[in-house]
Amino acid sequence: MLKIAIIGAGRIGAVHAKTVAEHPDAQLILVSDPFGDNAADVAACYGARSTKDVAAVFAADDVDAVIIGSPTPTHVDHIVCAVQSGKAVLCEKPVDLSMKRVDECLAAIAGKEDSVMIGFNRRFDPTFAEIRARVAHGEIGPLEQLTIISRDPAAPPVAYLADSGGIFRDMTIHDFDTARYFLGEIVEVSATGQTLDPAFRGSGDFDAAVVTLTAASGAVATIINSRHCASGYDQRLEAFGPLGMLEAVNQLATSVRYSGRKQSSADGPYLDFFLQRYAEAYRLELGHFIESVTHGTAPSPSILDGRAALVLSDAATRSARTGERVAVGSPSPRVAVPVR
Amino acid sequence: MLKIAIIGAGRIGAVHAKTVAEHPDAQLILVSDPFGDNAADVAACYGARSTKDVAAVFAADDVDAVIIGSPTPTHVDHIVCAVQSGKAVLCEKPVDLSMKRVDECLAAIAGKEDSVMIGFNRRFDPTFAEIRARVAHGEIGPLEQLTIISRDPAAPPVAYLADSGGIFRDMTIHDFDTARYFLGEIVEVSATGQTLDPAFRGSGDFDAAVVTLTAASGAVATIINSRHCASGYDQRLEAFGPLGMLEAVNQLATSVRYSGRKQSSADGPYLDFFLQRYAEAYRLELGHFIESVTHGTAPSPSILDGRAALVLSDAATRSARTGERVAVGSPSPRVAVPVR
Amino acid sequence: MLKIAIIGAGRIGAVHAKTVAEHPDAQLILVSDPFGDNAADVAACYGARSTKDVAAVFAADDVDAVIIGSPTPTHVDHIVCAVQSGKAVLCEKPVDLSMKRVDECLAAIAGKEDSVMIGFNRRFDPTFAEIRARVAHGEIGPLEQLTIISRDPAAPPVAYLADSGGIFRDMTIHDFDTARYFLGEIVEVSATGQTLDPAFRGSGDFDAAVVTLTAASGAVATIINSRHCASGYDQRLEAFGPLGMLEAVNQLATSVRYSGRKQSSADGPYLDFFLQRYAEAYRLELGHFIESVTHGTAPSPSILDGRAALVLSDAATRSARTGERVAVGSPSPRVAVPVR
Amino acid sequence: MLKIAIIGAGRIGAVHAKTVAEHPDAQLILVSDPFGDNAADVAACYGARSTKDVAAVFAADDVDAVIIGSPTPTHVDHIVCAVQSGKAVLCEKPVDLSMKRVDECLAAIAGKEDSVMIGFNRRFDPTFAEIRARVAHGEIGPLEQLTIISRDPAAPPVAYLADSGGIFRDMTIHDFDTARYFLGEIVEVSATGQTLDPAFRGSGDFDAAVVTLTAASGAVATIINSRHCASGYDQRLEAFGPLGMLEAVNQLATSVRYSGRKQSSADGPYLDFFLQRYAEAYRLELGHFIESVTHGTAPSPSILDGRAALVLSDAATRSARTGERVAVGSPSPRVAVPVR
Repeated sequence: MLKIAIIGAGRIGAVHAKTVAEHPDAQLILVSDPFGDNAADVAACYGARSTKDVAAVFAADDVDAVIIGSPTPTHVDHIVCAVQSGKAVLCEKPVDLSMKRVDECLAAIAGKEDSVMIGFNRRFDPTFAEIRARVAHGEIGPLEQLTIISRDPAAPPVAYLADSGGIFRDMTIHDFDTARYFLGEIVEVSATGQTLDPAFRGSGDFDAAVVTLTAASGAVATIINSRHCASGYDQRLEAFGPLGMLEAVNQLATSVRYSGRKQSSADGPYLDFFLQRYAEAYRLELGHFIESVTHGTAPSPSILDGRAALVLSDAATRSARTGERVAVGSPSPRVAVPVR
Repeated sequence: MLKIAIIGAGRIGAVHAKTVAEHPDAQLILVSDPFGDNAADVAACYGARSTKDVAAVFAADDVDAVIIGSPTPTHVDHIVCAVQSGKAVLCEKPVDLSMKRVDECLAAIAGKEDSVMIGFNRRFDPTFAEIRARVAHGEIGPLEQLTIISRDPAAPPVAYLADSGGIFRDMTIHDFDTARYFLGEIVEVSATGQTLDPAFRGSGDFDAAVVTLTAASGAVATIINSRHCASGYDQRLEAFGPLGMLEAVNQLATSVRYSGRKQSSADGPYLDFFLQRYAEAYRLELGHFIESVTHGTAPSPSILDGRAALVLSDAATRSARTGERVAVGSPSPRVAVPVR
Repeated sequence: MLKIAIIGAGRIGAVHAKTVAEHPDAQLILVSDPFGDNAADVAACYGARSTKDVAAVFAADDVDAVIIGSPTPTHVDHIVCAVQSGKAVLCEKPVDLSMKRVDECLAAIAGKEDSVMIGFNRRFDPTFAEIRARVAHGEIGPLEQLTIISRDPAAPPVAYLADSGGIFRDMTIHDFDTARYFLGEIVEVSATGQTLDPAFRGSGDFDAAVVTLTAASGAVATIINSRHCASGYDQRLEAFGPLGMLEAVNQLATSVRYSGRKQSSADGPYLDFFLQRYAEAYRLELGHFIESVTHGTAPSPSILDGRAALVLSDAATRSARTGERVAVGSPSPRVAVPVR
Repeated sequence: MLKIAIIGAGRIGAVHAKTVAEHPDAQLILVSDPFGDNAADVAACYGARSTKDVAAVFAADDVDAVIIGSPTPTHVDHIVCAVQSGKAVLCEKPVDLSMKRVDECLAAIAGKEDSVMIGFNRRFDPTFAEIRARVAHGEIGPLEQLTIISRDPAAPPVAYLADSGGIFRDMTIHDFDTARYFLGEIVEVSATGQTLDPAFRGSGDFDAAVVTLTAASGAVATIINSRHCASGYDQRLEAFGPLGMLEAVNQLATSVRYSGRKQSSADGPYLDFFLQRYAEAYRLELGHFIESVTHGTAPSPSILDGRAALVLSDAATRSARTGERVAVGSPSPRVAVPVR
């Protein structure tokens, strides 16, 4: 029975708390959040203790592992403290918005990188995972073109975005990890940003983007992002090879289909947003984390995967601003094995 | 070069005229219609002669074959005259609404049944034909359940329906032929009629129906009909066997798909009505007729197939009125070979 | 907090136990099963007591409600004992295979019918429920034709079927309830049975069937059943009215779509079987039961709905054997309100 | 009755000859081809004259308009001669592979540009045209992202490709025109080329590519190309705006859908290749040409549209080789009006 503490009792922390509570091999021990009653409220649902002082988490002898769902700027501190106090870590993406801070984090936990897993939850989505497995099994031949269409239902508040690091570090970073998950080492990045909503003008940020990634294998990934989408959370992926194509199509809230005077075979809305679309992925992600801690194996995606996704985010940011294609010189020490 | 005359220059006659004109091995010679300028108008488009007197068709030495698209009550007379004057015949369904008249027709052309083909055009629809061929090839194993959903966009005028012989002889007759095309000999018919539109109350006719047919093989066909359908001409078929299922889904005018706030993946309207949905079937039907006449082989569907569909229509009419399942005692002398 | 006991610790009992355990307003107190360690095993997962003696359930003062998932022949006894000991009941379908026994049950609990809910779980399926709500809201106009296609992945063992009461009482009974859920009072039943698998020959039972139900409203429901389906658990429904159509299409395990040399846009397999396809329905069904007990309102589907579905099952059995359409004379005292 | 000559009696010439013959307002007068019996064979089908000497076309007094389907290097000469002899021209794409030659052509026909239409047939595809019309009508709001996926079933012979001008001038040029048709003026081009098939290594050409186009409006188009596709001719388009999305999905040879043990809802193959997929577009393209000549209006796409697509092809070629985003400085004098 793995004893788990959660840092951050916001929306994502509550999801993790419930998932931990339902997992047969884990127990929620402690919830930490500095604001109001958040920690106490979440803890109460599952019979766990709560604290406003995060130091209590690192000091707790009965905590084996920590899930970090606090704001991004605190991630590195929490990772380092947790690792140094001997606890395993599952940290939400991104590790940090600054490459320098990420590298400081890596230096601080040198030799214990395998204690840290990064929450790129899409790797655990059954649909994406099935496609990757079938690609790896050779069903479509060597992967040649990967197309990821990823659009949010609506842009977050401008205040949130000001601290987000920009679309590539905040939103596309998930897709960069997905691209690496399928294609392995990326060698070149070319990005085009769009500022469609006038609210984004002058922010230096974009609210839509197209990114082209070239892999060492010669395969190319295209990522198409938008901060808004009228029909909801648009999450598609298309893996194309010489023998065929595997697509992840959008998932729907129900399987009702309507036909009427103007339309035939109209499906209902997509699953609402990431908490619904990736509900199963959160469960499987936690299961993998618990299993890797329990068995003492390295979790994946690792903190180096977290760094690699940030490398691509930085490269895309530079490419979108300069119009140049950016070579990604130093491959991550341990990239995911490319699928081919 | 097969020289062809067309009797009846209405909507369906015009379709046949164009199809004949475009066929490389056929020539439109003569068009006959007693009303106004119909015959002359159609003939003029293709450089053919025209007449108001149908007798001129049977007397014409340069006519090898006749396509009968005149009103149903004239079919038997025109078939008999055409056959007796040595011409091959392609006659629109039904042969007649009265079984007695059909049998008189058969008696009159005894020995020359192979001169007559009946225009059950759906047999030539590439989608239905592909499904039948794949069933025959064993792809889904022995056919166990056949489901036909066939709905018209809107009911014809009541005046038309008064002479139609009722829904089973006028509309379902196509589906009865399709059922025989897939299942061969039918031994029992059970029908339920509906009168949904108040205009049909007291007419003795129905505007919707469900029919269950049991084949000699043990397979069962279900036919679901309606005289109206908001989303257009609903033409589906589903062949189910122990190894799988083959469906004919509706066909669309374009391949545009819409996603918006309320609906995702909404297709556009179906192909408009039978002239659009079965346009290719009309071409292939004529091609088969021309080929069978040219090569001296028996055309299919034959006039006996026309009779057999009427037998099922009569049985369904009786079943819907009495609530009894009706045994279909005397199988047609030469039914289509069942697919299994 | 509603305190619940479960009678029967087999497959369905285990599902209910987990659902109770996860429900915030319910507590699993006691599990009863006469065989081996079943009860103890299930109880242990959720910290409940267990017993091999069902009498202990009715005697337990701390049990408010009982979920009956034991074999069908025990349902009536358990319902009567539970009601007489003042407990609310959620009983799996069917109430019993014998109408006489059902009526004895109703007599024994007279005045307390509202204590009993029958587990027709499909009413709680979000897809079916959405369609019914949209029909009720007038989206497609008055319901005219309802088509239910319901096929199991594979036939159960012959030994099981010998005690099942036949396909109409065992399998179609779900679809009869669905038809009543949409159409209200049914006045006529016509059924055709098929014995496709030689193993069913001579059993007096069928392994496939087509049933036509006529509602008092004039609407017609068609049910197409098979005990086997190569592509899995085929669960479709189509509600057709003058303004449009609402379909429940099959649900898939993932949203992966494959295109290759021979096929384009091939979806993966359906959700496996009823435990997967109706997982959410089981949760919502229990939620409705808990809420109705807690608030003292009548649960639905009621035991009279259970009886009404059996009336249709008996009528279909007779129709399939005799070839007659069977009038369903005495409507249930309180049928579901028809949707129109 | 417009009298038409065809230059080039190869595959595309034969398509045009048939289309002219079937058009009610046009007559095929003359077919020219220097090789073997090509011209005579095609001409014989439709009662036209034939010649091996293209000069006879320009000299023919009874020819009003010329369709040029000869090899690309001859296009400019034929356009100039035809225009100078007072004939209207419909020329297959591209005008020429060399911008210098295109500009020489424009100089030679200065003042008579409206005599020349370029055969970008996809503008006439009913599906693409419907999407453009619905975008123009505001159905999805201002167009923000356009995604074009365009893959051929199989690469042409290497010998053909050597003279093709490379993938961007030969294949993507269609997609560049489609992008301009939707987005109007393009200001920046970024392209990534792939050489997947070893046969392409060292050729300087690519067999797959991803191109990003930025429009003056701020909209971005992404084009994904491949010279091969296992599932056939993959022709998709997706127009995305703030109010919704309109997609062109692939079109199928029949509407048969298969479900079996491993797959559910598997569609059949796509329409074979461009002659099938764009059959209706060829007809509508010719109709527009005939109408514009007859009414003396400027045809569209114009020769300036042909030049503009070549500008984008050249820019993509340079971008793919250098890794730079290429600004497209001088917009075409008369671009298509952007849709927004």
